[in-house]
Amino acid sequence: MSLPPILIENVSPSVDGGRYPAKRVVGDVCVVEADIFRDGAEVLRAQIHWWKEGETAFNVAPMEPLVNDRWQGRFVLADLADYRFTLEAWTDPFASWRSALRRWVAGNQDVTSEIQEGIRLIAACADRAEGEDCQTLEEALALLRDCGSDGDAALAVVSDAALSTLMDRLGARIQPVVYDPPLAIQVNRTRARFGAWYEMFPRSQGTVPGTGATFREAEARLPAIRDLGFDVIYLPPIHPIGATHRKGRNSALEAGPGDPGSPWAIGGAAGGYLDVEPALGTLEDFDHFVMVADRLGMEIALDFAIQVSPDHPWVRAHPEWFYLRPDGTIKYAENPPKRYQDIYPLNFQSGHAKQIWLAMLEIVEFWIDHGVKIFRIDNPHTKPFSFWHWLLQQVRRRDPDVLFLAEAFTRPKIMKALAKLGFHQSYSYFTWRNTKQELTEYLTELSQTEVREFYQPNFFTNTPDILHEFLRRGGRPAFQIRLILAATLSPSYGIYSGFELCENDAVPDTEEYLNSEKFEIKVRDWNRPGNLNELIARVNRIRNENAALHDLTNVRFLGAENANILFCMKATADKSNVLLIAVNLDPFHTQDAVVWVPLADIGVRAGESYDVEDLLTGARYRWGERNFVRLSPDGPPAHILRVERIPHP
Amino acid sequence: MSLPPILIENVSPSVDGGRYPAKRVVGDVCVVEADIFRDGAEVLRAQIHWWKEGETAFNVAPMEPLVNDRWQGRFVLADLADYRFTLEAWTDPFASWRSALRRWVAGNQDVTSEIQEGIRLIAACADRAEGEDCQTLEEALALLRDCGSDGDAALAVVSDAALSTLMDRLGARIQPVVYDPPLAIQVNRTRARFGAWYEMFPRSQGTVPGTGATFREAEARLPAIRDLGFDVIYLPPIHPIGATHRKGRNSALEAGPGDPGSPWAIGGAAGGYLDVEPALGTLEDFDHFVMVADRLGMEIALDFAIQVSPDHPWVRAHPEWFYLRPDGTIKYAENPPKRYQDIYPLNFQSGHAKQIWLAMLEIVEFWIDHGVKIFRIDNPHTKPFSFWHWLLQQVRRRDPDVLFLAEAFTRPKIMKALAKLGFHQSYSYFTWRNTKQELTEYLTELSQTEVREFYQPNFFTNTPDILHEFLRRGGRPAFQIRLILAATLSPSYGIYSGFELCENDAVPDTEEYLNSEKFEIKVRDWNRPGNLNELIARVNRIRNENAALHDLTNVRFLGAENANILFCMKATADKSNVLLIAVNLDPFHTQDAVVWVPLADIGVRAGESYDVEDLLTGARYRWGERNFVRLSPDGPPAHILRVERIPHP
Repeated sequence: MSLPPILIENVSPSVDGGRYPAKRVVGDVCVVEADIFRDGAEVLRAQIHWWKEGETAFNVAPMEPLVNDRWQGRFVLADLADYRFTLEAWTDPFASWRSALRRWVAGNQDVTSEIQEGIRLIAACADRAEGEDCQTLEEALALLRDCGSDGDAALAVVSDAALSTLMDRLGARIQPVVYDPPLAIQVNRTRARFGAWYEMFPRSQGTVPGTGATFREAEARLPAIRDLGFDVIYLPPIHPIGATHRKGRNSALEAGPGDPGSPWAIGGAAGGYLDVEPALGTLEDFDHFVMVADRLGMEIALDFAIQVSPDHPWVRAHPEWFYLRPDGTIKYAENPPKRYQDIYPLNFQSGHAKQIWLAMLEIVEFWIDHGVKIFRIDNPHTKPFSFWHWLLQQVRRRDPDVLFLAEAFTRPKIMKALAKLGFHQSYSYFTWRNTKQELTEYLTELSQTEVREFYQPNFFTNTPDILHEFLRRGGRPAFQIRLILAATLSPSYGIYSGFELCENDAVPDTEEYLNSEKFEIKVRDWNRPGNLNELIARVNRIRNENAALHDLTNVRFLGAENANILFCMKATADKSNVLLIAVNLDPFHTQDAVVWVPLADIGVRAGESYDVEDLLTGARYRWGERNFVRLSPDGPPAHILRVERIPHP
Repeated sequence: MSLPPILIENVSPSVDGGRYPAKRVVGDVCVVEADIFRDGAEVLRAQIHWWKEGETAFNVAPMEPLVNDRWQGRFVLADLADYRFTLEAWTDPFASWRSALRRWVAGNQDVTSEIQEGIRLIAACADRAEGEDCQTLEEALALLRDCGSDGDAALAVVSDAALSTLMDRLGARIQPVVYDPPLAIQVNRTRARFGAWYEMFPRSQGTVPGTGATFREAEARLPAIRDLGFDVIYLPPIHPIGATHRKGRNSALEAGPGDPGSPWAIGGAAGGYLDVEPALGTLEDFDHFVMVADRLGMEIALDFAIQVSPDHPWVRAHPEWFYLRPDGTIKYAENPPKRYQDIYPLNFQSGHAKQIWLAMLEIVEFWIDHGVKIFRIDNPHTKPFSFWHWLLQQVRRRDPDVLFLAEAFTRPKIMKALAKLGFHQSYSYFTWRNTKQELTEYLTELSQTEVREFYQPNFFTNTPDILHEFLRRGGRPAFQIRLILAATLSPSYGIYSGFELCENDAVPDTEEYLNSEKFEIKVRDWNRPGNLNELIARVNRIRNENAALHDLTNVRFLGAENANILFCMKATADKSNVLLIAVNLDPFHTQDAVVWVPLADIGVRAGESYDVEDLLTGARYRWGERNFVRLSPDGPPAHILRVERIPHP
């Protein structure tokens, strides 16, 4: 190892020292920082080199020193592409000389010799310059030669803006150093960061009790969901459901007559991954469903679960793709001491892994061609990292607008690894973070550490598998609290249908829904009393209208003198949109607190007041640094306050 | 990029992701940690591969999982050498199978098929085994075959220790992954971490006012310094001092008759870097001085300042090694608006840099051959990083026991870079960290962050250039406070002579000593009233006798309900030596505080008491969790309490 003359260290954004790309969305400004320094007191300069992968020429953006050898620059990520950047730094002899001259003059020292040095530097540059540039330099030289030992006059000459620009451009660059290797930024479409998701079983969108809906019937529900303000409709698997070992209601080992089975038991007499469950209709019906959603401004996210029912065509066509028992039979999915007789996992360790990989890619591309641009991947952590990395790269190459959400609820390092290797979004621990301390610590990790560069959480309030005790015990106020937390803390969030009706009957002492929709058909009155439709629609409208809610990393927790009141601020970088959010985390009691606003950070002078509008209720308040809030479980259990008047930006 | 089947991340110790070596001393146990994980629920195993640079075979040390995919292992750094290590991880099918079997049995499931799988795994291993190993495996197979579907019996068979050891050693290792590139550990001798330094000007060790001492005369001082408990005598440059532009007393531009000049103006009629200032004696006298120190158990650290007086032989022999002004004259050292007419810097940017590098190496090797094993490098931050990196590598190759201390007081990233590139020790900001908050924050950075892996500070209480206001204003109590802080917080610390006499006359409003020894000869009464000799000797003895003080990274700050009382704990890893240290940071007033001891961490049960002995006074106390301390500026302003009784280790 040999050391370069200038050290460039601690460059951000980078993930694991550049091993994985950082993530951004189209239109983001990429702010780059680095420690850049050398020995001695010479003046350094630095710039960013950035380009899109595949381009041969690079673009340049300037960097400026912040403090303590930390430098910063920025460039715009205009396109859906993979960007690369690196940094270049060099010693600037002209700037170094001018800086020293300034200090000599300030100290009333004789600068005769120093002026001669400056003449040499400019003359060397003039020798290389042409035309007008050369003329400008020669004029400066003539002026400088006339200065003799007059330091003030010399400083005036060499501080001229035109000369400075020219010397920046044409002056010698001593020992330039380029950071290596370049770092990567994966730029995705906006939906990778911002979107409101609604999970629903199409078969449960009907109106006749006990009868499953088809896609054509489920379409009728789409306008209402659009009215709630959702952007993405996420569907569990839509493929033929297996009959062998089909699970009955409440996960019973034997299905009763008419039990529809779990959509995650994929494959049956009607086909496999490339087919539609006949009870839902045809592929054309699905296409129509996608089209109607699209017309309403929504898109479809499709579940992709790599496990098949014993009836999937692959079981006969490719028995070698599965795990075999010593007696030659195919192994069920199992997680000792539990066995899942209705599904077989694929054996990614078998000698046929590459065939399996290609089959998976074929499935994804098939559904992309049917209008699906988002896949929610079921249990990605039980398949090899290298497989996902390959699959996501293949898809991105063909369809860079396709997004993948990792449904992994497992150990933290595995969830992070999936995000690093390419998943655009990830499920999170949000459902299990309910106290002020839990929420603060978790959001701080997600928003303030290196995790922010690669991990985009999607805060689901509930899923078909997770009905948290907070909702089970807290009832309607708890649903309101969790909705507002999810929708404001994270730019991507979702609910699983039934949430808006505050459904919270669970299998006792578990997070499983009682009479889970996974195993039976539901028919609901979507407008029954006590529903949260109005609040949901309002919250989604607030999200759409306030850019501060389109970012996860801008959350800042503020002081509230009550452990049940979470108080935080979200603001755009330019402070044009500043929100103060207070949530009562107690679903049972009214809570109040004094809350503190850092006035300087919202552009208000000490001692001055400002107006806030509660976007949930329309109420207006005059606030200061120290404010009183009282929130009841009966009213909206939160304030979402927009700062209306910012006197001193 | 393709991803391995098992991810190994966040390996420690490592510096900048492996770009620089971590530092340790001979005899240290190197504790290695890493995040190691893969998809799914298979059981992983991992081990360390370690070797000394230049060796072809590697050694193996086991790793065990801690929590959340964090693994740990260790190996001993027995030799003064450069070590390398990497990690290997693999999937263990036998352990995975046995883990699943255990869960099946616990869940009362039928395990007939599982037992058959286990038989296959062991049989495959038996096919490869020989002799006794094969026999052991065959016996186990016979027992397992007899189990039929009896899970408990099968578990008993496969939990056998001999079988487990054999399967660990001979069983299949699926998809092994080796971390790349290997990481480096630079192992130094103990003095790199632990030592008490005493800085002195040999010429000021005499007894006749106005007359400089020779090395032969200075030798007489060595036993007294040994009695104070110091390990290293650090000498400013000992070379001939230039006459041209020699500085006078108090840095006067013109020297008076008899003014000895600054030792840092190197080179004169009597020679340069390879010579001894005639007023100090001959090279033989220096050799003798080194020998006497060595017999007393001390070693010499020599200053190496790369800058010469206008009278150094190089100025005539190699004018091209220096910076030239436009008029052809050589440039003084300068730091606008200051000029240092008595010294010339060398031009490391000149075309003759390689010659200069080699000349520097020659100097260092010359003095190594005269018994110098420590160099204190003056202002290393004004020379290229690449030069130091090269020089230190060259020296380490020939003389791995030679140590370098970086005297850089500059911006934090530059100080850290010098440590990363090879300096064994570094000066620090300690002199400017005086309040409890300052000390706590600074020590926490040095001891708890990645900085601990490469930056070994040497806490000097004062230097010829730094007499801090705390000492100037606080008088004798302040000197006691700073001595105890330096000597207990950092295993390497030092004082500059005169400290023991509480000398604190400064040039007004500066950190410069008045009548600085840099420019004149001093004669002192080393035993004059008010000296700190007894305290210094005691503190150094405490350091030598308590292993907890031989480490920087074990400091832990504890609660003390008074901002003027710093309270911390230092303990060896095995808790055989536990110290509780309380220091009154206020040199003017008695302060008291309730201090809190985390009983569990010192091996005491809740509610129990323990004895402590104050190593400064010999007093004994019975302490508990909550204790009262009162410290006066008049007594020793600190407790250094050794926990005497640890009932429950």
